[in-house]
Amino acid sequence: MAHEAGSLNDIRAVLGNDIAVQSYRDGTRPFPDGAVIARLAYKYVPSEENNAIFGQAQSFVPGAPTNAQFSVKDAQRYADTGGWGFGQFEDGKPNRSAALMETCYPCHARAPTKDDFVFTHYTP
Amino acid sequence: MAHEAGSLNDIRAVLGNDIAVQSYRDGTRPFPDGAVIARLAYKYVPSEENNAIFGQAQSFVPGAPTNAQFSVKDAQRYADTGGWGFGQFEDGKPNRSAALMETCYPCHARAPTKDDFVFTHYTP
Repeated sequence: MAHEAGSLNDIRAVLGNDIAVQSYRDGTRPFPDGAVIARLAYKYVPSEENNAIFGQAQSFVPGAPTNAQFSVKDAQRYADTGGWGFGQFEDGKPNRSAALMETCYPCHARAPTKDDFVFTHYTP
Repeated sequence: MAHEAGSLNDIRAVLGNDIAVQSYRDGTRPFPDGAVIARLAYKYVPSEENNAIFGQAQSFVPGAPTNAQFSVKDAQRYADTGGWGFGQFEDGKPNRSAALMETCYPCHARAPTKDDFVFTHYTP
């Protein structure tokens, strides 16, 4: 999980399938084929309810969902993009915009090489 | 998940067992006996790595774990505290301080009655 401020201003959960989580736990990089990482993001909003209870602005919680993003590892199929295929869903439907998809890899390519194009670290 | 600012200043994941999650999905309150809710909290820290990549302070991630807290529903056993038993673990070990335990219910008792002493809402 993370809070991404700036223009996104979301709070996000990052989930992995068994292959991805095992790689996180073992520190295996690059991730093996079949690894899937999901990122579920929601607007970052104050909890008016909690803040009223506690008497100060201290709680920030997920608001409306923004989108769900997936990274799927297949070193051969996605050789041009670091071995990762990227996807984004909004309201449960895939966004197939080529212009959107073209933004995924250039940003992930900026992650340190040791992290295999993935920003999220494992927190035990 | 949530960011709790103020003196705690943590980022937290809230998990439930099957009984708790089903109650969340169905909106069932009070939670039935056997519901277990876990709250895993970590220091809320900037990701220096991400911020260097993106050129601005925008990423906040979990740092060192602070503690794990559990709420266990048993309406009869914990009748004096809204039907909830509370526990806290630090470094994997239970903190059995009576003084600490006495702080749990008075705070949870301030949650709206409709929420059965639970602050966390379900985010689909």
